[in-house]
Amino acid sequence: MTEHPLKPETKAMLEKVSVATLCTVMYKRGLRNQVIQDVHPLSQKGKNMVGPAFTLRYMPAREDRNQLIEFRNPKHPQRHAVEMCPEGHVLVMDSRKSAYAASAGDILVTRLMARGVAGVVTDGGFRDAMSIAQLEMPAYHHRPASLTNLTINEAIDINVPIGCGDAPVFPGDILVGDDDSIIVLPAHLAEEAAIEATEMTAYEDFVLSKVKAGASIIGLYPATDEKNLAEFEEWKANRS
Amino acid sequence: MTEHPLKPETKAMLEKVSVATLCTVMYKRGLRNQVIQDVHPLSQKGKNMVGPAFTLRYMPAREDRNQLIEFRNPKHPQRHAVEMCPEGHVLVMDSRKSAYAASAGDILVTRLMARGVAGVVTDGGFRDAMSIAQLEMPAYHHRPASLTNLTINEAIDINVPIGCGDAPVFPGDILVGDDDSIIVLPAHLAEEAAIEATEMTAYEDFVLSKVKAGASIIGLYPATDEKNLAEFEEWKANRS
Amino acid sequence: MTEHPLKPETKAMLEKVSVATLCTVMYKRGLRNQVIQDVHPLSQKGKNMVGPAFTLRYMPAREDRNQLIEFRNPKHPQRHAVEMCPEGHVLVMDSRKSAYAASAGDILVTRLMARGVAGVVTDGGFRDAMSIAQLEMPAYHHRPASLTNLTINEAIDINVPIGCGDAPVFPGDILVGDDDSIIVLPAHLAEEAAIEATEMTAYEDFVLSKVKAGASIIGLYPATDEKNLAEFEEWKANRS
Amino acid sequence: MTEHPLKPETKAMLEKVSVATLCTVMYKRGLRNQVIQDVHPLSQKGKNMVGPAFTLRYMPAREDRNQLIEFRNPKHPQRHAVEMCPEGHVLVMDSRKSAYAASAGDILVTRLMARGVAGVVTDGGFRDAMSIAQLEMPAYHHRPASLTNLTINEAIDINVPIGCGDAPVFPGDILVGDDDSIIVLPAHLAEEAAIEATEMTAYEDFVLSKVKAGASIIGLYPATDEKNLAEFEEWKANRS
Amino acid sequence: MTEHPLKPETKAMLEKVSVATLCTVMYKRGLRNQVIQDVHPLSQKGKNMVGPAFTLRYMPAREDRNQLIEFRNPKHPQRHAVEMCPEGHVLVMDSRKSAYAASAGDILVTRLMARGVAGVVTDGGFRDAMSIAQLEMPAYHHRPASLTNLTINEAIDINVPIGCGDAPVFPGDILVGDDDSIIVLPAHLAEEAAIEATEMTAYEDFVLSKVKAGASIIGLYPATDEKNLAEFEEWKANRS
Amino acid sequence: MTEHPLKPETKAMLEKVSVATLCTVMYKRGLRNQVIQDVHPLSQKGKNMVGPAFTLRYMPAREDRNQLIEFRNPKHPQRHAVEMCPEGHVLVMDSRKSAYAASAGDILVTRLMARGVAGVVTDGGFRDAMSIAQLEMPAYHHRPASLTNLTINEAIDINVPIGCGDAPVFPGDILVGDDDSIIVLPAHLAEEAAIEATEMTAYEDFVLSKVKAGASIIGLYPATDEKNLAEFEEWKANRS
Repeated sequence: MTEHPLKPETKAMLEKVSVATLCTVMYKRGLRNQVIQDVHPLSQKGKNMVGPAFTLRYMPAREDRNQLIEFRNPKHPQRHAVEMCPEGHVLVMDSRKSAYAASAGDILVTRLMARGVAGVVTDGGFRDAMSIAQLEMPAYHHRPASLTNLTINEAIDINVPIGCGDAPVFPGDILVGDDDSIIVLPAHLAEEAAIEATEMTAYEDFVLSKVKAGASIIGLYPATDEKNLAEFEEWKANRS
Repeated sequence: MTEHPLKPETKAMLEKVSVATLCTVMYKRGLRNQVIQDVHPLSQKGKNMVGPAFTLRYMPAREDRNQLIEFRNPKHPQRHAVEMCPEGHVLVMDSRKSAYAASAGDILVTRLMARGVAGVVTDGGFRDAMSIAQLEMPAYHHRPASLTNLTINEAIDINVPIGCGDAPVFPGDILVGDDDSIIVLPAHLAEEAAIEATEMTAYEDFVLSKVKAGASIIGLYPATDEKNLAEFEEWKANRS
Repeated sequence: MTEHPLKPETKAMLEKVSVATLCTVMYKRGLRNQVIQDVHPLSQKGKNMVGPAFTLRYMPAREDRNQLIEFRNPKHPQRHAVEMCPEGHVLVMDSRKSAYAASAGDILVTRLMARGVAGVVTDGGFRDAMSIAQLEMPAYHHRPASLTNLTINEAIDINVPIGCGDAPVFPGDILVGDDDSIIVLPAHLAEEAAIEATEMTAYEDFVLSKVKAGASIIGLYPATDEKNLAEFEEWKANRS
Repeated sequence: MTEHPLKPETKAMLEKVSVATLCTVMYKRGLRNQVIQDVHPLSQKGKNMVGPAFTLRYMPAREDRNQLIEFRNPKHPQRHAVEMCPEGHVLVMDSRKSAYAASAGDILVTRLMARGVAGVVTDGGFRDAMSIAQLEMPAYHHRPASLTNLTINEAIDINVPIGCGDAPVFPGDILVGDDDSIIVLPAHLAEEAAIEATEMTAYEDFVLSKVKAGASIIGLYPATDEKNLAEFEEWKANRS
Repeated sequence: MTEHPLKPETKAMLEKVSVATLCTVMYKRGLRNQVIQDVHPLSQKGKNMVGPAFTLRYMPAREDRNQLIEFRNPKHPQRHAVEMCPEGHVLVMDSRKSAYAASAGDILVTRLMARGVAGVVTDGGFRDAMSIAQLEMPAYHHRPASLTNLTINEAIDINVPIGCGDAPVFPGDILVGDDDSIIVLPAHLAEEAAIEATEMTAYEDFVLSKVKAGASIIGLYPATDEKNLAEFEEWKANRS
Repeated sequence: MTEHPLKPETKAMLEKVSVATLCTVMYKRGLRNQVIQDVHPLSQKGKNMVGPAFTLRYMPAREDRNQLIEFRNPKHPQRHAVEMCPEGHVLVMDSRKSAYAASAGDILVTRLMARGVAGVVTDGGFRDAMSIAQLEMPAYHHRPASLTNLTINEAIDINVPIGCGDAPVFPGDILVGDDDSIIVLPAHLAEEAAIEATEMTAYEDFVLSKVKAGASIIGLYPATDEKNLAEFEEWKANRS
């Protein structure tokens, strides 16, 4: 998992591209299912969440194993994961796509932020969602959920491969979240994806400026008319 | 379809009534299923979207027909529809009620706006949703969707009758969207609906002013007490 | 149902605790299903909705019994409920978890507010949702719904036990709604829940201040380390 | 409810027509939602279930009110309903469309049969479904469900108007179930529906015999070609 | 569409392989979504349904266009499609994945059979399902549906590309249905798929005989151990 | 996990009681969620499946890791699990509740049977379901699924705690499946559950015989009338 650490320059590039553009980059490589479905940010942050995945897996709760007393165990996987998730990483929770009960609340999420974690993601829901929305650290979920997670879920595994919102997440994969969605970049592809998405974003910016000025998309997007590519080169030169 | 063009005075009336009121007007005529279900505006515009429908139909994608190279075809139906949708019309997409992948993104939607289109609607989702939300032209969808539409959908037909959010949409039907929902008015009923809804809206405004002042709804809404109708006439006279 | 009226001091306490905290209080008593699922406030109010439940039950509509003329009946259960719901109570509607058509609109909700009702809840949707969102009285639903309720629902029973968002609601139960969710407190448990939640909230505030200052949650949340309880007592003393 | 008792000759007719034909009869009268959706017979009986509805309403269970001890109460609504449902009636349960837990099991259903009840219907599921399938009395549900009903449901009301599979059911309505589905005939329409469906069935039998012999459906179904009506009269005369 | 007619020898091969095997053949070619989801045979036929697709597209019904009188129109698309579907073809209906109302009933299906059609498929439901189940011609649906199709659907297009159970279906594609599911083979791939699946089936038969005799699947399925391929050749020689 | 092996006498008892009865036994102990939801037998076997759980966990598939070549790896977890599952155990698969693609097919299931495995369970679907239905070994799934599992799932973990149909399954838990459903008995409770269910079954048999003979359920089920308990003792004595 540590074979492909996230380089600072890759991270910088990933902070400036959209998830949509990264989706197209993945699509070219045959990866079509890397978006965490039906999960969105609790509040808009104006910049991307970027970081390697650190995972927590929930399974259905059995009542005798999930009384409140369990939280007194210092090694309870949910609490333990919050203390273990490395700085700069994103804690990603497989909550079995259910927001009937919460995946975590504002105390745990505040602790993650205090520890320097880059963000937190669940395919379930957070309790105290409105407080979490006001934190600086980005958080993503399906919808608010007030019941304690013990009601339906038992935290069972830390940092194993999981599904989140029907997307595959391996520990160390690079998560990029914008105001719309989150994409999971396989660790070994993050760098090339960042570079390619950066290039595509420049062209998309050029296209958008042309479209705002009245240009047709035919021949321009994609650039089937060579003239547009030439004009793009000029535009880029002028911009920098 | 062009037998019932949208008159400017009808459009002006439809801009000032709510979708809820138009629903009641349609209900009186036995039409109970004209609201596009589970689709909402990306941002509030403070005024209604009104325009005739121009449609795009998606079908499930077959992988060999839906590689990125398809977009290089100037007649690709999605791109073609964006260039063909007439000024003042609303582009309505049957995305099979799935927001797993996007129906369109900010470049296409910006192009629609530049071309003078009145709005864009999908029962799936838009990518770059947060950018689209900031455009002046109204856009409606189910939720943000970052994957390229090719992932699950192939644009197959332009301007045929479709379903959108389980409502029937015929080319030329008049769409009216407010901050809550969109209703599909059959073209031949749009004018009478506009007139009737305008009258109903006046009475509803009167009712609301009475209710705010402490009146009971019994006898007032609906006006089973004749006195209220008389008072309404007076109120109208005073207002104008 | 009137055996357990809501005391003013209980109400005051319930206005200051979160639904999440109350969920944990109920969980300790073996009640795990008291949150109204998938229902949220139309707008944030900055304070809790608190009041005893007054209920309305909908059943599927049969067309011959649900024409617009029905509303002319002064005893139509929907209209009647709006006029009957006692001041300070919350009108809770079992809309069969469907937002295909509306549970009510802005006129009825404004009337409820004028009558001093504490709030209104449906597991379906409101029409004129954006107007309702701007009222001072809190309202909770699943999503906007523009069709008239007659389209799918017939109001059939007033103030009987119902389900709302899969939670059991008995007339007189105490509803507490914050910006995330609503919990249904059985009437006989409301007072003890308010007291216990108030105590827990104090400790959670203490925890949050510690976590913001860099403390680990282990030993602190829950307080397995006695030192934290001592420090909490001191913190409470200082705060008051 | 007793204003429209089921006459023996109406019952006899309803035993010989299909639910599909009755749907068309109701459709002509503007009733489009009378089929209990997604509910089917546990086993094929080779003849229709016909009888007036006697209803039982479930609401979501609250744990403190739904321990096994409740069944010791001789007036527990579920057990009481089983003993009260009149001979020849159909017990219809509103189980909130959930088969997570059972609506009843083989002992209660056997008791219903012993008491001369005409059938039993739930929009949830039965436990001991395979035993119930072997009883002579027809039973309809969504799917087998082994958990005790207390797990999610509390029986709360006997013989009130309910929804079942999203269809409206009033006590005394006539239920007709065949191997496909169940339709709910409003009590006052049952007789005329029986007569009309009987006539339609004769014509459909005629059509089917013609189609099997190679006839086109155009002009025949419906009978837009007068010749077919004449031929039908002859066919009927020959048949009797 | 007629560029790739179904050859008799291809048809013969497709009658003897399973849909599962054909799925693997398609998977090798990058086609992963060719199974019509959540649709199954009304009864087991003991042999495959094989034939080119002839399609019918439904859209949501608007009440004023969908009264029973519409069926008197000899060109009503549903009735017309039944008379037009060529012998040996399969009529495939896009019913928008809803079995709330019927896609067709026993008269139309019997007419299809009388005309020599190879089968009928809907992603909704059939009325008179138990009668249709007893016909010799195979029929596939989601579940029985007794309401007339006019209740929710309007037949709008004949023989256009459609979605059925989320799979893409183009007129002329070859449908193969067994007791489990239906796969849609793109017309130009049907022949090669038939050949490849036939070969795979032989090997799978060999594997199954070995497994029944106690062999491990490792090295055998797939044949990573060369010895198994040699043994297979011998087995084939012996079998013929 | 091996602390609570399944004793032969416990197994013998569990073969003769229903899942419904075991549900009530678990309910008494506060365990309400032990039934694997929406999963049923491919065919009725006339006797219960009983055995300790051996588990396989699937996660969402990433395309580059899930090509057909993966099956050539002798340690591929799906194939490996089939060879490792101990005799007398039940292989239980967490297929993320999706039957879009298959969890396994007839070759693997036949191999399990040949190895003496007691049964196989998935909350997804099997391909070649009709062949599997004819095997002697019981198999349970949601519905047939023909696509290869690689299409959506990657087998990732063997014999870890999983969810199956929203029920918690720990390796070594005792699964009991009848013609309706499967229940998961925590290993340490299996013996006492077997004993208690056996006793309850005797009483239920007695009740059923009384009900068939015309007895009311009041006082009998449950036995609030002491007379019935006395009669039961006699009945038991006579029966043996």
